[in-house]
Amino acid sequence: RVYMLRVNGFACKDPMAATPEDFFNAAMLDQPRDTKASKVRSNVTNINVINFPGLNTLGISLARIDYGPLGVNTPHIHPRATELLTVLEGTLYLGFVTSNPNRLFSKIVKKGDVFVFPKAMIHFQMNLAHDKPAAALSSLSSQNPGVISIANAVFGSKPPISDDVLATAFQVEKDLIHWLQSQFWGN
Amino acid sequence: RVYMLRVNGFACKDPMAATPEDFFNAAMLDQPRDTKASKVRSNVTNINVINFPGLNTLGISLARIDYGPLGVNTPHIHPRATELLTVLEGTLYLGFVTSNPNRLFSKIVKKGDVFVFPKAMIHFQMNLAHDKPAAALSSLSSQNPGVISIANAVFGSKPPISDDVLATAFQVEKDLIHWLQSQFWGN
Amino acid sequence: RVYMLRVNGFACKDPMAATPEDFFNAAMLDQPRDTKASKVRSNVTNINVINFPGLNTLGISLARIDYGPLGVNTPHIHPRATELLTVLEGTLYLGFVTSNPNRLFSKIVKKGDVFVFPKAMIHFQMNLAHDKPAAALSSLSSQNPGVISIANAVFGSKPPISDDVLATAFQVEKDLIHWLQSQFWGN
Amino acid sequence: RVYMLRVNGFACKDPMAATPEDFFNAAMLDQPRDTKASKVRSNVTNINVINFPGLNTLGISLARIDYGPLGVNTPHIHPRATELLTVLEGTLYLGFVTSNPNRLFSKIVKKGDVFVFPKAMIHFQMNLAHDKPAAALSSLSSQNPGVISIANAVFGSKPPISDDVLATAFQVEKDLIHWLQSQFWGN
Amino acid sequence: RVYMLRVNGFACKDPMAATPEDFFNAAMLDQPRDTKASKVRSNVTNINVINFPGLNTLGISLARIDYGPLGVNTPHIHPRATELLTVLEGTLYLGFVTSNPNRLFSKIVKKGDVFVFPKAMIHFQMNLAHDKPAAALSSLSSQNPGVISIANAVFGSKPPISDDVLATAFQVEKDLIHWLQSQFWGN
Amino acid sequence: RVYMLRVNGFACKDPMAATPEDFFNAAMLDQPRDTKASKVRSNVTNINVINFPGLNTLGISLARIDYGPLGVNTPHIHPRATELLTVLEGTLYLGFVTSNPNRLFSKIVKKGDVFVFPKAMIHFQMNLAHDKPAAALSSLSSQNPGVISIANAVFGSKPPISDDVLATAFQVEKDLIHWLQSQFWGN
Repeated sequence: RVYMLRVNGFACKDPMAATPEDFFNAAMLDQPRDTKASKVRSNVTNINVINFPGLNTLGISLARIDYGPLGVNTPHIHPRATELLTVLEGTLYLGFVTSNPNRLFSKIVKKGDVFVFPKAMIHFQMNLAHDKPAAALSSLSSQNPGVISIANAVFGSKPPISDDVLATAFQVEKDLIHWLQSQFWGN
Repeated sequence: RVYMLRVNGFACKDPMAATPEDFFNAAMLDQPRDTKASKVRSNVTNINVINFPGLNTLGISLARIDYGPLGVNTPHIHPRATELLTVLEGTLYLGFVTSNPNRLFSKIVKKGDVFVFPKAMIHFQMNLAHDKPAAALSSLSSQNPGVISIANAVFGSKPPISDDVLATAFQVEKDLIHWLQSQFWGN
Repeated sequence: RVYMLRVNGFACKDPMAATPEDFFNAAMLDQPRDTKASKVRSNVTNINVINFPGLNTLGISLARIDYGPLGVNTPHIHPRATELLTVLEGTLYLGFVTSNPNRLFSKIVKKGDVFVFPKAMIHFQMNLAHDKPAAALSSLSSQNPGVISIANAVFGSKPPISDDVLATAFQVEKDLIHWLQSQFWGN
Repeated sequence: RVYMLRVNGFACKDPMAATPEDFFNAAMLDQPRDTKASKVRSNVTNINVINFPGLNTLGISLARIDYGPLGVNTPHIHPRATELLTVLEGTLYLGFVTSNPNRLFSKIVKKGDVFVFPKAMIHFQMNLAHDKPAAALSSLSSQNPGVISIANAVFGSKPPISDDVLATAFQVEKDLIHWLQSQFWGN
Repeated sequence: RVYMLRVNGFACKDPMAATPEDFFNAAMLDQPRDTKASKVRSNVTNINVINFPGLNTLGISLARIDYGPLGVNTPHIHPRATELLTVLEGTLYLGFVTSNPNRLFSKIVKKGDVFVFPKAMIHFQMNLAHDKPAAALSSLSSQNPGVISIANAVFGSKPPISDDVLATAFQVEKDLIHWLQSQFWGN
Repeated sequence: RVYMLRVNGFACKDPMAATPEDFFNAAMLDQPRDTKASKVRSNVTNINVINFPGLNTLGISLARIDYGPLGVNTPHIHPRATELLTVLEGTLYLGFVTSNPNRLFSKIVKKGDVFVFPKAMIHFQMNLAHDKPAAALSSLSSQNPGVISIANAVFGSKPPISDDVLATAFQVEKDLIHWLQSQFWGN
C-alpha cells in the first residue's frame, strides 16, 4: 500500500513510490479547444495542481487559452501568480490595470510575442480577428494560481452581493445592477 | 550626513541614525474622517510604507475606514495582503468572494467583532445604518498592500479598457459600458 | 462528515465546507478587560490561530491590551511577528530595545497614535496614568506570533534555569536570583 | 530623467515611468532556431530577467528549446527553478535524476505533452528523430533560473578542476580526464 | 573600478569581479579565545555577514563560543536564526525556554554532541567544569542572526528602560532594579 | 499516546510531548570516521532531518566530512542549501563552479579556515596530504539539503541515462560512456 500524506492540502506521494507518470501530463496543449460553447468566445485549459498533482510544491503551472473570432478572456485576477503569456496563434489585444492609480498597460501582440501580467493585477486578452481563432500558452508562477473573473465574481457570485453595495460601487441604479446580475444567473 | 539606501524601492535608514520617531506615526486613528465628499460615502485612511517609512520590511500596515450612513467601501482587492477588520463603531454588512467557484462569504458584524478577508480576494463593507456613521480598523499583512478598486479599475482606468472587451465580459451592449465608464471619468 | 486536514499543525477545513462563521470572531474587542487580577495590572486578549482557526496560513492576528492605572505590559518578544500598536485609550510610555547594541527606542504616545515594534525585539508598554485605564489594539504579522515574557521566561520557567547561569548572567548573588525566582513560582 | 534603482541586482523602474513595452518581449518564440552550429545539435533561447528586465521580482521566465535530428539538451540543473516543459514539435526522450538515491525518471513524450523537472534536479531532453527537428517551450519558476551544464561545468570550467579530483570522482585514469576536458577546451 | 551595489543593506559584488577570497574567511575557528576578560567567563566569535560579506543572501553563519571554567554564554535570543550547536571541547549544561508556556528544555552535553535552539527562543550554555575550558561551534540559519542578550538588553540598554516598568515586570522594588541596572552600566 | 502529525512529510511532535532529547543528537562529531571502505577515500556523516527529526522546520543541518590521504568529497550539489565549511583538521583543496559562465572558485584552506559554497553550485573538496587524514564540519542552510553526486547521478543512475544522451553531452564515443558507467554499476 502506498503511504500518502498531504502537503498544502494536496496529495504528496512517498518519493519511493513515485513514477515518471507522476511528472507527466498528456495535456494535448497543441490542440485547439472549442470556443463556440462560450458566451465570451474563449476557452481556458488549465494544467495545475488540481489535475496534475505532481506539480504540488513546485511553484509553476500552465494554461492554454483559445479565442474564437473576437473572443475575449475577460478581465480577471490570479491571486497567487504572475502570468507570462506567449502568443501561439493570431493577434491579441491585451493589458492589465495597476493598483493605485488605475493605469492601463495594453498592447497588441502577435504570434511568438511574450507579455507578462504581474501578480494579482486585473488583466484580459481579446482576439482582434473577426474571422479566425487565436491561441496563447501561459505560464503561471504557482501550482495553484486561482482565478477571479471580475464580472462573474461581482455580478454572478452565489449568493449575490447586495444590490445596495453594487449600486453604490458602480454609481448606477439598482435596476441596472439587476440587469447586470441577470447576465450571470444562468451560468 | 545620514547615509540612506533603498530596500524594496523604499528608503532604509542607517540603523544608527534611526530615532523613536521613525517607528511612530501620529495617525489620529481615533478621529472620524469626513465621508461626505465621497460618492460612495466612505473614507479610507491608510497607514503604510508610503506615509510611514519605518514599516519598510516589517510586513504589516493599517487602515481606518469611515462609513457615512449607508456608506460603502466598494468591492476591491489587496493584491499583497490579508485584511483583518475590527469594527470600531456601528454595524456593517461585509463579505468576500472566493475564486473558482465564486462563492460569497458575507456576514453582518457589529462593534468589537473581527472578520478576515483572505489575501487577494474581492471584498467589501457597507454601513447598514441610514442615520449614523460606522468605522473599522483594519490590519493588513504587508507594509505595502496595494488596492484595486474593482469598479474604478475596470471602468475608470486611464486609458480605458476597450469597450469590446468590457461589453463581452459583462455581456451587455457597448452603450451600457459607456454609461458605466462615464460614472468614473469625472473622478 | 467534514473532511479536516492539518496545515502548520492547525486544522484546515475543506474550502467547500467553509462558512462565513469560519472567518468571523465575536472578539468583543471594544470591551475593556479586567486588569485587577493581574500582578502587573494589564490584560492581553489574543485573537490568533489558537482561538480563531480561520486565520491559519493568512499571516496576521490581533491583540487587545488593557492597562489598569500604572499597568504594564512587561518586556516581551514575539518570536514570529512584528507588532503595530494603535492606542485606543489613554497615554502610554512604550519602547523596544535593539539587538547589538542595546539601544532603547521609547516614546510617550496617546490615543490614536501608532507605534511599531520590529519582529522579535524586546518591547513593553506602560499606562502613565495612576487614576485611569488605557487600552491598545495591536496587529501582528503572523497568525501565530508567540510570546516570550522575559521576566517569567528567565525567572519563572518550569523547571527553573540553574541559579549558576542566572547569577552569572545578571552579575548578582544566587540569593538575589532565588528572590527573583520566588516572585514567579506562585504564578 | 527616469530615476532607476536596483532590486536583486537588476534595474527596477519607477512605476510611474513604466510603459507597456516594459512588460513585452518580441521573443519570436514561434520561430525555430538554428541547431547546426551546436556540437550537441540543440539551441536554447532564454527569455528571463537578463534580457527582459520587466520580469524582475515576478518569479517566472521562459525558454524555447530547439533540437536538430538526434539533438540533445545535455544534462543540466537550474539551481533556482522548477521547469515545466511543453512539447511544441516532435518526439522527445527526457528525464531527471533524483538526489539520494539516484533514480532516473524518464519518458518519451510527444507534441502537446507536458513534463515537469523539479527544482535543481539534473535533467535532459533528446530528439528521438534522426530526420527532423523538435522543439519545446519551457516555463521556469524564477525570473533568473540559472543553468549549470554538467559536462561543461565539470570538464570545461575556467580554470579547470584538478585532475586528481576528477579522476577520483569518475574512478578513471587522469589521461581519460584530460581527454574529457579536451572536448570542452575549445568551447 | 568594481561596481558595487547593495542587497539587504550589505555590499553585493558584481559576480564577474568576485574572487575565491570573497568566499573565504581565515577565521581561525580552531583557536581558543581568551575568556578571562569577560565578566561571564565566555567569549563569542561571530563569523557572519558583518565581517564576512560573501555570506550575504546565503542564509547561514557561524559562531565559535569559548567558555572558561564555569563560564556562561548568558540567556539570549537570535531574532532571525535557529542555532545548531556542536560541542568541540568539554561538558556543557545548556537549554532553551519555550514561549507560552515557559518550559525549560535543558540537557548536559559533551564533546561531539549536537543540540538545537529553535529560532528566537531564549537559550544559554554553561561550562560545568571549574578547572578547564570548554568550546562549541554553532551554525546559525541566517547570514545576519542578531543577538539580544537578555540581562543586558533589559537592565543595560542605553537609555535605560524606566524603573517603573522593570519593577513591575520583575515584581520587585525599584532599589533592586537600580542594583541590577548598576551591574551593566559599566559595560 | 503521543499525537503525531506530519509537516513537510516529516514527523512533527505535539509541543507538549516534546522533551530535551528531541533537540539533542549524540552525533559524536568529534570522532573520525573510517575512509578506507570508500573508493574515493572520504566519508560524509550527515546530521539532518532524516536522522534528527527535531530539526524539522528549523532550516539548518550539519555534516562531518572525513578525508583519508588524498581523499576526495567528489563534485556534488545540495539542491536546497548553502554549505559553510570549517576545516577541523588538515589542508584541503576545495572549490565550486558557477553557473553561466562556468568559472571555478578554488582555494587551499587549512585548519580553522571557513569557506562557503553558495546554494546549488557544484562543489568539491580534496585532502592534499598523502600521508594523513583531514576533516571538516559543514553547516547547511536547510534541515533537508539533499545531495546530488554528479558522477554517480550522471553515470550511475538506476536505470541509466541513455548512452546517446551521454555520448553527446560529453562529446565522446559510446564505448567510453559505457566504461564510465561501468565504474558505478557496482556501487
